[in-house]
Amino acid sequence: MSKTAENTATKPVSTGPLPASRRVFTSPAMGAHLAVPHREIALHETANEPPVRVYDTSGAYSDPNCKIDVDAGLDRTRIDWLRNRDVETYQGRPGQALDNGGAKGKYLAREFPVSHAPYRQAANGLLTQLEFARAGIITDEMRYVAERENIGRRSKVPGAEAKILDGQGFGAQIPAHITPEFVRDEVARGRAIIPANINHPELEPMIIGRNFLTKINANIGNSALGSSVEEEVEKMVWAIRWGADTVMDLSTGRNIHNTREWIIRNAPVPIGTVPIYQALEKVGGVAEDLTWEIFRDTLIEQAEQGVDYFTIHAGVRLAYVPLAAERVTGIVSRGGSIMAKWCLFHHQESFLYEHFADICQIMRKYDVSFSLGDGLRPGCIADANDAAQFAELETLGELCKVAWDHGCQVMIEGPGHVPMHKIRENMVKQLEVCGEAPFYTLGPLTTDIAPGYDHITSAIGAAQIGWYGTAMLCYVTPKEHLGLPDRDDVKVGVITYKLAAHASDLAKGHPAAQLRDDAVSRARFEFRWEDQFNLSLDPETARKYHDQSLPKDAHKTAHFCSMCGPKFCSMKISQDVRDYAAAKQAQEAGMNEMKEKFREKGSKLYLEAGE
Amino acid sequence: MSKTAENTATKPVSTGPLPASRRVFTSPAMGAHLAVPHREIALHETANEPPVRVYDTSGAYSDPNCKIDVDAGLDRTRIDWLRNRDVETYQGRPGQALDNGGAKGKYLAREFPVSHAPYRQAANGLLTQLEFARAGIITDEMRYVAERENIGRRSKVPGAEAKILDGQGFGAQIPAHITPEFVRDEVARGRAIIPANINHPELEPMIIGRNFLTKINANIGNSALGSSVEEEVEKMVWAIRWGADTVMDLSTGRNIHNTREWIIRNAPVPIGTVPIYQALEKVGGVAEDLTWEIFRDTLIEQAEQGVDYFTIHAGVRLAYVPLAAERVTGIVSRGGSIMAKWCLFHHQESFLYEHFADICQIMRKYDVSFSLGDGLRPGCIADANDAAQFAELETLGELCKVAWDHGCQVMIEGPGHVPMHKIRENMVKQLEVCGEAPFYTLGPLTTDIAPGYDHITSAIGAAQIGWYGTAMLCYVTPKEHLGLPDRDDVKVGVITYKLAAHASDLAKGHPAAQLRDDAVSRARFEFRWEDQFNLSLDPETARKYHDQSLPKDAHKTAHFCSMCGPKFCSMKISQDVRDYAAAKQAQEAGMNEMKEKFREKGSKLYLEAGE
Repeated sequence: MSKTAENTATKPVSTGPLPASRRVFTSPAMGAHLAVPHREIALHETANEPPVRVYDTSGAYSDPNCKIDVDAGLDRTRIDWLRNRDVETYQGRPGQALDNGGAKGKYLAREFPVSHAPYRQAANGLLTQLEFARAGIITDEMRYVAERENIGRRSKVPGAEAKILDGQGFGAQIPAHITPEFVRDEVARGRAIIPANINHPELEPMIIGRNFLTKINANIGNSALGSSVEEEVEKMVWAIRWGADTVMDLSTGRNIHNTREWIIRNAPVPIGTVPIYQALEKVGGVAEDLTWEIFRDTLIEQAEQGVDYFTIHAGVRLAYVPLAAERVTGIVSRGGSIMAKWCLFHHQESFLYEHFADICQIMRKYDVSFSLGDGLRPGCIADANDAAQFAELETLGELCKVAWDHGCQVMIEGPGHVPMHKIRENMVKQLEVCGEAPFYTLGPLTTDIAPGYDHITSAIGAAQIGWYGTAMLCYVTPKEHLGLPDRDDVKVGVITYKLAAHASDLAKGHPAAQLRDDAVSRARFEFRWEDQFNLSLDPETARKYHDQSLPKDAHKTAHFCSMCGPKFCSMKISQDVRDYAAAKQAQEAGMNEMKEKFREKGSKLYLEAGE
Repeated sequence: MSKTAENTATKPVSTGPLPASRRVFTSPAMGAHLAVPHREIALHETANEPPVRVYDTSGAYSDPNCKIDVDAGLDRTRIDWLRNRDVETYQGRPGQALDNGGAKGKYLAREFPVSHAPYRQAANGLLTQLEFARAGIITDEMRYVAERENIGRRSKVPGAEAKILDGQGFGAQIPAHITPEFVRDEVARGRAIIPANINHPELEPMIIGRNFLTKINANIGNSALGSSVEEEVEKMVWAIRWGADTVMDLSTGRNIHNTREWIIRNAPVPIGTVPIYQALEKVGGVAEDLTWEIFRDTLIEQAEQGVDYFTIHAGVRLAYVPLAAERVTGIVSRGGSIMAKWCLFHHQESFLYEHFADICQIMRKYDVSFSLGDGLRPGCIADANDAAQFAELETLGELCKVAWDHGCQVMIEGPGHVPMHKIRENMVKQLEVCGEAPFYTLGPLTTDIAPGYDHITSAIGAAQIGWYGTAMLCYVTPKEHLGLPDRDDVKVGVITYKLAAHASDLAKGHPAAQLRDDAVSRARFEFRWEDQFNLSLDPETARKYHDQSLPKDAHKTAHFCSMCGPKFCSMKISQDVRDYAAAKQAQEAGMNEMKEKFREKGSKLYLEAGE
């Protein structure tokens, strides 16, 4: 079954701009050295509108001006930002055969060609974004994300305050315009994180918090059945091309270390991992053989590589395990079940829980953010919001505060499978027990009966929990519960979650969210088909679907659509209505006169095909 | 572009049972002559569970015991139910060339081979389900739908009351078990309808109301660009195979009459239409040439054919038209824009509004239900919940009461494009102004930026509004805004809406909804792959996705899945947890003893591939 990783030259990844798009950069005030990327979508000249700027996650890959060399990795721009910080390079932990699961010869994935000495905290100065924020210091990362969240706008969008009031924020405090100081304040109070390991200088920083744009994560990773290093790098590039804000590498099996190195060196987005997966491989897959020492070593290995956030399942405590016994689907989190198994076998408290302060000390040195894992999340509707789930959440709240005390950035993972009426309770409880630390949920799936469509069952839940306050939504692909996502599945998963996240932003009252909807709607009303495609989340699919009914190029400038055919069109009538209303306003007197005028204007309902 | 309808023998439609499924029938108490269909999904013997019964919309097509002859139509079973009612057959309205848009020769679609004299009300007795219900009479249709809603269960499911309490119904009054008397009462108070034209005896009756299972509608129909009669019949059969509860024939262009006749004669589900579409064809597509007489004639034509519900856009009043002038996307409803155009041109009140009582009198004679159309629904996020939309809704509430006074059954159509935070207001207002008449919404779409994925943007809104109280959800396919849905799009649309409707039922606290989720989840936990596929909404897709990763038959009995590979599995650990908890309960004393026992039981984390 399993495919061997080939020791050959790396295959090319997906590059080139999206349709009608170009990558543009702006620099924040007080940050002329920072070039913050956005995507600019050009409109047809008949639109008489400026290009539409949208948030851009795609990195250099979508920029024809950048030379992409996967063997070299992306530019290490952010190294410069470290200059005034108390960091040092050092001889990192030596690599071991075990790091790649003992893979040898043709089974060993090619090593990344370039090696960089890692950075770590030097003196006992400030290191993490949280520490800087608390000290009142605005970092380059903070300036960068403020500029990025505003999509380069120099001031708030018109009517921003009204938009916020019109939304329903459930306690969100979204500002009309994001300032670096606002970013600092949100990070300082733990309500947002900027996952940015100092050993990931290829990163274009981004922020995760309920008062910012709702983010999405895409999972990739090889497995024992799985794919090659090249495929994983391409999956990452592919996922960010369509809008993934962060990417988790959930690789298991052999070649974990080398796969990850390739991904990080080529990733402009934060990379998250679940270190226990690799630790488990190091002990031959026997959970009870896991030790704190092996786990600790794995944390350092990954922190030196530049992983930006670690999922740590430290909330799966021994006492909670029996709470999952009567569940319909037990424990469905891989990390959760590994720890449950360990706790049961040894009848001891989890070493992650016991050594949590030690974990914090390691992660702080590199500014690796916590993603406190929900190892006891429900795996089906029947198990939602049960004692096991909420007991763990309470512990995550407790650990969150410990991590904060150590200066670490924290987000909290959430479910899972939850029927709609129980979603809100998850959010309310999380905000309460975790002091508003960002919530990062998997869906949740709102029913169990649609395998093959779980990107949709979960988008329904994700849009809602995003609206209620979740800061980042972990995507679910159509293959969930069934198989490993391929390239198409990754794209469908990402687009589905982008639209869910955007629906959340609209509902929360994000002041700028509706700009893109309005641009699409105007294009639709004016039959600017190309603009409608280009402004959409997935221009390729929109165009393909259109062309299935109306393949000719002429149809893309036609003032009709295939739904009603070439002769009849409600959009055309609406234009008549508009003209009529304008006429009415211009000339209040003489109802009959106006009626004639309207008739004269041409009341044709049918348009000729050529029109 | 347009395809000619061929005068050839009808192509076969999709038949045969769904995987592991058979069609079974139960008869209600006091209704031994009624055979109510359900689908029974057999499980693997290792499940040790009885077959799972689910609601079945597929009609005779999924029953290998039924001979399907599309040229003859389905059995006209319900004719017998009319015996004791005041109905008569009569020589129907003579057919006219105009009924098929003047199509001639090879352009004229083949006539349905069998002709039936229509029925209508004879004396001035009771005729509609609403009239019977008000008179305290339980009809066969009411008994039938009660049995159907219970899926043949003789009594409530265990813990039904607790399930209802656990849900959040927003004022729904879902009973633990549906009785014919409950159905009668809901119909009598206008809170539910049984769309069942007496001229559609092929119908298997169903009910639409907030206190019943949430229903979905699928739209089909040829267009000027479109498809043949055969394709439309197959689309209908295909849509109900996957779960469409009603089907709307939205054909435009030529051959409307003949296409509809083929569809109705072969449809076991209620068929809805928008009569103004055909009326417009009769006046050559010139909206201002529409007259009450032509519309009236079309209503009779369609009522005699057996259309079960009519969308009537009588709420688009002259005074409301200017309210749509400043909208970003104006009027997007085809029916709404036709009427707006007519009103503007003549500067007169809509003839649908003026003649509403006449319309009621016609529809009552055949028990055609109203679907009061939302001609001013918003076509984009910017236009949601605006003055035009709500002005029309008020009028729909007024007309609903007029229709009730005439003994007609009524449902109300709703939007459209609405951001999440404005959905609830739609439902609250509709319940208030329309006296709880069933709401029937199109989505709503929760963002405009994802053409190609609008089945998903709208499923997010549909699941929510269904939860809040909408009785039927009109599907949206991936081709929305872009093109005409093909067979695959219809299926994706139907499955997406089935899962959204089901998510609504779970959230409302429908006492039996979770039975299917639990069955899927148990199958998942026990690695009964075949059962997981068979119990899902789309077994074919679930199986296909699984086989893409694990193609071999042996993998379908394997106790692992491709996500974690053959060696590692959280489900297996959960079983260990369960065993451990059982052991703990059995033997409270001696912690060490128990620990040994757990170790003895085999703490292998890895399973062998063959295991």
